[in-house]
Amino acid sequence: MFKKILIANRGEIAVRIIRACNEMGIQTVAVYSEVDKEALHTQMADEAICIGPAKSKDSYLNMQNILSATVLTGAEAIHPGYGFLSENSKFAQMCEECNIKYIGPNSQNIDNMGNKLKAREIMIKAGVPVVPGSDGEIASETDALESAEKIGYPVMIKASAGGGGRGIRVVSKVEDLASAFNTAKTEAETNFGDGTMYMEKFIEEPRHIEFQILADEHGNVIHLNERDCSIQRRNQKVIEEAPGAGMTQELRKQMGEVAIKAAKSINYKNAGTIEFLLDKYGKYYFMEMNTRIQVEHPITEMITGIDLVKAQIIIAAGQVLPYKQDDIKIIGHAIECRINAENPNKNFMPCPGVIKSLHIPGGYGVRVDSAAYQGYKIPPTYDSMIGKLIVHGKDRDEAICKMRRALGEFIIEGVDTNIDFQFKIVNNKGFIKGKFDTGFISKEFKNI
Amino acid sequence: MFKKILIANRGEIAVRIIRACNEMGIQTVAVYSEVDKEALHTQMADEAICIGPAKSKDSYLNMQNILSATVLTGAEAIHPGYGFLSENSKFAQMCEECNIKYIGPNSQNIDNMGNKLKAREIMIKAGVPVVPGSDGEIASETDALESAEKIGYPVMIKASAGGGGRGIRVVSKVEDLASAFNTAKTEAETNFGDGTMYMEKFIEEPRHIEFQILADEHGNVIHLNERDCSIQRRNQKVIEEAPGAGMTQELRKQMGEVAIKAAKSINYKNAGTIEFLLDKYGKYYFMEMNTRIQVEHPITEMITGIDLVKAQIIIAAGQVLPYKQDDIKIIGHAIECRINAENPNKNFMPCPGVIKSLHIPGGYGVRVDSAAYQGYKIPPTYDSMIGKLIVHGKDRDEAICKMRRALGEFIIEGVDTNIDFQFKIVNNKGFIKGKFDTGFISKEFKNI
Repeated sequence: MFKKILIANRGEIAVRIIRACNEMGIQTVAVYSEVDKEALHTQMADEAICIGPAKSKDSYLNMQNILSATVLTGAEAIHPGYGFLSENSKFAQMCEECNIKYIGPNSQNIDNMGNKLKAREIMIKAGVPVVPGSDGEIASETDALESAEKIGYPVMIKASAGGGGRGIRVVSKVEDLASAFNTAKTEAETNFGDGTMYMEKFIEEPRHIEFQILADEHGNVIHLNERDCSIQRRNQKVIEEAPGAGMTQELRKQMGEVAIKAAKSINYKNAGTIEFLLDKYGKYYFMEMNTRIQVEHPITEMITGIDLVKAQIIIAAGQVLPYKQDDIKIIGHAIECRINAENPNKNFMPCPGVIKSLHIPGGYGVRVDSAAYQGYKIPPTYDSMIGKLIVHGKDRDEAICKMRRALGEFIIEGVDTNIDFQFKIVNNKGFIKGKFDTGFISKEFKNI
Repeated sequence: MFKKILIANRGEIAVRIIRACNEMGIQTVAVYSEVDKEALHTQMADEAICIGPAKSKDSYLNMQNILSATVLTGAEAIHPGYGFLSENSKFAQMCEECNIKYIGPNSQNIDNMGNKLKAREIMIKAGVPVVPGSDGEIASETDALESAEKIGYPVMIKASAGGGGRGIRVVSKVEDLASAFNTAKTEAETNFGDGTMYMEKFIEEPRHIEFQILADEHGNVIHLNERDCSIQRRNQKVIEEAPGAGMTQELRKQMGEVAIKAAKSINYKNAGTIEFLLDKYGKYYFMEMNTRIQVEHPITEMITGIDLVKAQIIIAAGQVLPYKQDDIKIIGHAIECRINAENPNKNFMPCPGVIKSLHIPGGYGVRVDSAAYQGYKIPPTYDSMIGKLIVHGKDRDEAICKMRRALGEFIIEGVDTNIDFQFKIVNNKGFIKGKFDTGFISKEFKNI
């Protein structure tokens, strides 16, 4: 097992990883930007090294500095967390070249799944259902018109290098296609430096269902059941739950097997997530694979009893997964609310500042993963998520009641937060009934 | 189901009960003494009523005031928590007479088990193993000498009305017996107003093993496995864990069945705990029954997934227990550390005062049940426990590592606490090996 791990991240996920290491008896090295000197992850790690100024590109995205910090402190492995360098194949490759173990898949896995068009092609070959779409790249307006004709409107034009909802356009009629194609392509070129586009059928009222995968370096691949992440705002997840509210055991089995097939087809290692769209007829389509730990991983931990960060470390250390598919049970129901420092009444504008007062909910079935503390100054530089509130109940109804009560206990003063907004969602009738799709927030909270 | 419940308690257990009610959609009424106006339970309940001055006898033990508050607010039931009036049969009876549902057993159950000598006799009749001892009361020095001769030294002289380690003497040789008997009797008369004494064999190096019982009003009685509460200081529990470190499945089954037999023999209702001494030869003896929820109930919740406070409420409402003995599984291992505002270096002197800074541990498998908040002023009037830190791991080793890491994260400034002392215990070799008995702290921490 590793003696020392460097965590190439900040915020709650850095704290999460430090906790896992701590419990495993592994020394930790935090890296921090100049503005994160007082951050919780900086304070909690055994060692902490400043890697540059506040701007991400100068610190948390600065591969050279992070690798230097690793060599300097004698850490044997790097955990990338999520975001920042966690899906950067070049960074994974540099780690490999420096003989530092990257806690995640190899650079080729990251590369293959990072390119959405390539991922789609790989999945088609592996026999994994994908959304009907273009055969490969859409190079021109003519290509686009032909493809859309074949697929049938509405269609989605997507950037192969895309992510986070950028470089995407939905087109419902032929006359809008050409201009949508051109603006999306320009957006992709500007944002990702890569204007490669492709096209997919636009699935109406889908649910976002994703399967957690664990794959060791000895060929064992298991799934840990699904998460429903349909409660989104502008393609950003807001609430996640596990298991899915409307999931049947049969569909779970089918999709789980497909997820394993997808992971095996690329010889995937470590933790990963296969994201599907599930349409209202019960048909599912591969959307993309996330080759890292996800924000919403705790809900899977709650219902399976498996510590995913520890599993990542165990796998990276070359150990055999200590559980088989049949060992994975679903115990109760878990929900996660992302707690952001933002103002829902001002278009969710981020609200950095000092947390003047903090009271964290507690008690049975309540988990808080956060890097906040009373007196902590949230910098304006990074994303606005300051923590995650996770509850675990014996069933979905109890989990909802627990979330309501826990949100009610949560006090954060000094900055605006989305706690009241989350409270409204968990009190929404459609949410309570489990009747929702990815358009839920835009339909139910039009005035926000 | 009840619409409104009054909680006749304070501190973390009042908060715990409010949370359960809140999740069940039941309105809550807090009662508070003048010094507890700003207490968390007072702030969290839907309604709060002042029931008198700080001193317990004028407020939390003031039955008339509590019953008046109940009638005034229209609460249909009272949850007594632990301590205060929770084992006062007169209070339970008054509730019965006022047509207020007492969330706990009936007054006769409380009466029978509160009188240690009577409880012993009942258990003997029911065929439950008890510590070899006197047949009934020891009325005189002569009686004491005869009994001790028969039982064999060392023996324990105990007050029938005793509790909390008072009115007890251990005697190893005949020449010490008479004076020990007389001082214990005087102590019992002074403390409990009842000088009835009895005698038991002194069990050397025992473990304290207790079984959690749930009994509904329809004759269903189940046990939720054991807790090991051997880590004690002066008969006060310091750390509890579930399941027991050295427990075998066979012994668990046997003792669990005996615990159910004990509860059934008195037609017990609601939650209760049968406490046993387990000697080093694997023989176990009934010690006493606690007819209320216990401080350490969360560790049982963690390993069984059953919310004990909700179970109490469901039972009191006349519902059938929704689970059978076969449904009760043990999932992982849980440990609880009691967090007290006290100074271990000054003979554990309580340390009331203002909590100037508070940072609560979080993350996977960590639960905090507490009534503390930053700025809270701990009054000198009540016990020094300000919260409980509970961890849940996949096995005992992981639970210990998790407790160590969580204690390390816990920051309380402004008052002295036993956090460092708890940290020392969970790092003790004997504790880690699971090799300990009720004398552990006095043996391992002589200088404290």
